[in-house]
Amino acid sequence: MRTAPKPALSDLKGRIDAAMGRRRVDLLLKGGTIVDVFSGCLRPSDIAIHRDRIVGFGCYDAIREIDISGRFVSPGFIDGHLHMESSLLTPAQYARATVARGTTSVVIDPHEIVNVMGSKGIHWIMRSARKNPLHVFVMVPSCVPATSMETSGACLSEIEIEALLNEPWVLGIGEMMNFPGVISCLPQILRKLTISQGKRIDGHAPGLSGKNLSGYVAAGIYSDHECTTKREAQEKLASGMFIMIREGSSAKNLADLVPVVTPENSRRFILVSDDRHPHDLIYEGHMDGILKKAIRFGIDPVTAIRMVTLNPAEYFGLSDMGGIAPGFRADLVVLRDLEDFHVEWVIHGGKPVVENGVVRESAFQAKSPPLANSVHVPRIQTDDLLLPARSSKVRVVGVVPGQIVTNEVVESIPVVDGFAVTDRQRDILKIGVVERHHRSGRIGKGFVKGFGLKEGALASSVSHDSHNIVVVGTNDGDMALAINEISKMRGGLVSTSGGRVSRALPLPLGGLLSDRPLEDVHEDLVALQNEARRMGSRLESPFMTLSFMALPVIPRLKITDKGLVDVDAFQIVDLFL
Amino acid sequence: MRTAPKPALSDLKGRIDAAMGRRRVDLLLKGGTIVDVFSGCLRPSDIAIHRDRIVGFGCYDAIREIDISGRFVSPGFIDGHLHMESSLLTPAQYARATVARGTTSVVIDPHEIVNVMGSKGIHWIMRSARKNPLHVFVMVPSCVPATSMETSGACLSEIEIEALLNEPWVLGIGEMMNFPGVISCLPQILRKLTISQGKRIDGHAPGLSGKNLSGYVAAGIYSDHECTTKREAQEKLASGMFIMIREGSSAKNLADLVPVVTPENSRRFILVSDDRHPHDLIYEGHMDGILKKAIRFGIDPVTAIRMVTLNPAEYFGLSDMGGIAPGFRADLVVLRDLEDFHVEWVIHGGKPVVENGVVRESAFQAKSPPLANSVHVPRIQTDDLLLPARSSKVRVVGVVPGQIVTNEVVESIPVVDGFAVTDRQRDILKIGVVERHHRSGRIGKGFVKGFGLKEGALASSVSHDSHNIVVVGTNDGDMALAINEISKMRGGLVSTSGGRVSRALPLPLGGLLSDRPLEDVHEDLVALQNEARRMGSRLESPFMTLSFMALPVIPRLKITDKGLVDVDAFQIVDLFL
Repeated sequence: MRTAPKPALSDLKGRIDAAMGRRRVDLLLKGGTIVDVFSGCLRPSDIAIHRDRIVGFGCYDAIREIDISGRFVSPGFIDGHLHMESSLLTPAQYARATVARGTTSVVIDPHEIVNVMGSKGIHWIMRSARKNPLHVFVMVPSCVPATSMETSGACLSEIEIEALLNEPWVLGIGEMMNFPGVISCLPQILRKLTISQGKRIDGHAPGLSGKNLSGYVAAGIYSDHECTTKREAQEKLASGMFIMIREGSSAKNLADLVPVVTPENSRRFILVSDDRHPHDLIYEGHMDGILKKAIRFGIDPVTAIRMVTLNPAEYFGLSDMGGIAPGFRADLVVLRDLEDFHVEWVIHGGKPVVENGVVRESAFQAKSPPLANSVHVPRIQTDDLLLPARSSKVRVVGVVPGQIVTNEVVESIPVVDGFAVTDRQRDILKIGVVERHHRSGRIGKGFVKGFGLKEGALASSVSHDSHNIVVVGTNDGDMALAINEISKMRGGLVSTSGGRVSRALPLPLGGLLSDRPLEDVHEDLVALQNEARRMGSRLESPFMTLSFMALPVIPRLKITDKGLVDVDAFQIVDLFL
Repeated sequence: MRTAPKPALSDLKGRIDAAMGRRRVDLLLKGGTIVDVFSGCLRPSDIAIHRDRIVGFGCYDAIREIDISGRFVSPGFIDGHLHMESSLLTPAQYARATVARGTTSVVIDPHEIVNVMGSKGIHWIMRSARKNPLHVFVMVPSCVPATSMETSGACLSEIEIEALLNEPWVLGIGEMMNFPGVISCLPQILRKLTISQGKRIDGHAPGLSGKNLSGYVAAGIYSDHECTTKREAQEKLASGMFIMIREGSSAKNLADLVPVVTPENSRRFILVSDDRHPHDLIYEGHMDGILKKAIRFGIDPVTAIRMVTLNPAEYFGLSDMGGIAPGFRADLVVLRDLEDFHVEWVIHGGKPVVENGVVRESAFQAKSPPLANSVHVPRIQTDDLLLPARSSKVRVVGVVPGQIVTNEVVESIPVVDGFAVTDRQRDILKIGVVERHHRSGRIGKGFVKGFGLKEGALASSVSHDSHNIVVVGTNDGDMALAINEISKMRGGLVSTSGGRVSRALPLPLGGLLSDRPLEDVHEDLVALQNEARRMGSRLESPFMTLSFMALPVIPRLKITDKGLVDVDAFQIVDLFL
């Protein structure tokens, strides 16, 4: 487990001198009420800060004083499990968007970018985060690539994982999604687990119970963020797991799990965001929004705040974070109240980075370091999308609105000039997955029902887990155009119609991220969604739905660059019956 | 912080296979009720064990089943702070005495033996503990020697401390008693603190408050076992410290601190024994006895058990201990009830070592490795104890019955043939401290009031902190005999009278420990105490009182081999006025 970095002797002396009042402290927060996560109560006290550390309580002579009378001071919020890529933002822009919400530390599982570019992606994230007032800790993705039925940009070997585990900012390995691999003792999984013992291994075990759960936990996996019922959470809790209650953009478990929390077990819970999309980051916030909900659902405010401060800090071994105590990092949030969690001040390492509700822009370094193009696709011709018919009966991916699971439906398909073609009337559209990492030109092709487009095409280089280019459309011309536009943008989301590009959101960094601010990204996203709606789609988030069409670990029929995948059978199947 | 040792891949596979029920488990505890320290509740379940690990709950096919119907199963007890030397037992004999009480792990601060023989003493302790079913973890003594006003057997340099901190069984550095040194930034103290950052640094800060406390905590010291009042504990808690509630043989704080414990803060408390003498180990037990008291004082049983299991495990980073979960070490205690804490079974690393109340002797290795003689004193002649009078007015050490503090009293003393001599009628006896580490022959001499001896002498090689030989007596002949007898025994406690040795307890290991069983040691100790009483002493524990006469960090007048110490002035003072 990570422990606090060792201060130099002179730093230690400076801290003690400041704490003793032998020198002026740098900052004094005056008149506030401390959220005391150690004692589990609220208590009024001034807080003295020297350099990046809290040094004492009460009366101090300070270079700068900030009056926070009537306000509450909480340790900075820690998000214990998230995939930052869901925001479509670079770490730098993510910091800019969430620090204002009181987040001072995040523990990310950079599963998406690693699928695209391996450990280089992690190092780029760390460089991008640097110089921003947000601590980024990493849980190394444990399952890249997720399956052999798709082509990813990289695979992360045990050797690379082991090297990463030595980095001080790496806290362990990320959600071990291959739970069948764990409990069946798959050698490559066991090797990853073995090298990770002694660091944290995050779990991902939806519905696992009884002996299956015991087998999974016995492997050294002591957290889970996939609980959906009270009973499931209770069993996992009793098995020694920390329960990460997820309240993300897609999956929301807070309401169901709040009834599990008692004063006796509350220290074993952690609130996490997992995935937060731009819309939610703007309108619901980050941990502040989750806290607000938790309190509305009946959790005591100090207990809830512990779940985003002391509890994750202890779970991850961040021994100088998550509480307000002498020697702890001065990462603090000043809140107007403990209901709406309106953030007024954010102190990061002793420096105010949000002042009276206003972000200090100079504290942020919005620009990320450059990243080579990751979209490698030869120019696609309309003919490349043709589907020579071997029968008129096909397996069609059936969209379930608002879900990431799909159905398998069998449909008769029009055959024109020997080619299987779309049937707009019956909402049977063509779908393609273009391998984009190795310039192979490989395209998995099939049909999908449920997008509802009456014209044009939608395409995205965000498509879990391998992030090839997924495209859905009413005609091959617009589909090819969409793919080529994504190549041109080095990744992104696009809509095409009538032979021209109507809307686009460039995501040039890994084909996943934009280096523009949250608000701009959201604006483009809304425009794209509106355009999709204009084109006939009735889906709430057509691009999100699209991004899960190529995820071959979620039932039931999916499509990758290698073809149609029957997820239950865990194998590639023929399009034609 | 220490983390669990990495299992080999085959071990991990074995655990998972066992947890999944694919192979017979080694042991099944059937019909018991689990003290679930994670959920904070009691729940009935069988427990399956494979090798040294817990692997699952419920129904398993097992090689051996143990019926514990109607019983409670708790994680093995952890004593988070103790000086094992107070028991006068070797680690091997200590294990034999406390494992039967449910203790499976101890975190020791071997302050006494290190004062005698430096880091060699720590390595000897670890060798002695090995092959016994008790985990011994070490907090390296932080303050050896304690002062320069006495002669210790060794000093522990920063270099040696740093080397020890790399040992997997070392969890940090022990109680930082030199709190004035910390808050005044004494360079050698800061150096020790600097090298220890990232590991645990235990505190010892009686009465510290306000800025002094902040300065101390800011140095990275996050525990304290010296709280005596509710208010003190609350302030330390709010400063980020774990509160170790001490219930030792001398200092007892449980009754005073129980009112501080709430459901909101209980996870920040740890119950510790600090010092336990043989009598208490026999009649009150170890952590079992402290738990029994805690419950009598009104703490909920599961909460109390957490304070000797999960809480210390988390504080010390013992990530696979302190709870009953798959993958955790199978260190378990089966209790008849949660009131008397009567221990029926103790499982250590999956092996029963106490079975139905009966200790499995073969699980213990009572014999300790040899240890060279540590008592180096030339033969003392009666004349060596003569005190040439330079005046008839002397500073006398005034014993305060039942306390380790003393008074300074000024008395007129008889002078015979130019020598200051004892005055039995006025209970003014001679006291001497014989340097015993370096064969210097140095003897600090003075007078003491309060022992009440009417004849003979008492002597001991246990005398905090330097453990020189301390002797008190009515005449020089019996005093010299007592000193020489201790040399002969290589250390121990002795009473002499009328020119012969009346009683003795040999402590040949470091002059501090016996390799005989607890009961035998206790018998000798009782005999010595009775003899002292017969000789006229009215003190409850004359040898314990004697052992603190040479401790120059506790007020007010003490004596070392270098002479009388005025503790308040922190300097050597003249005997004669």
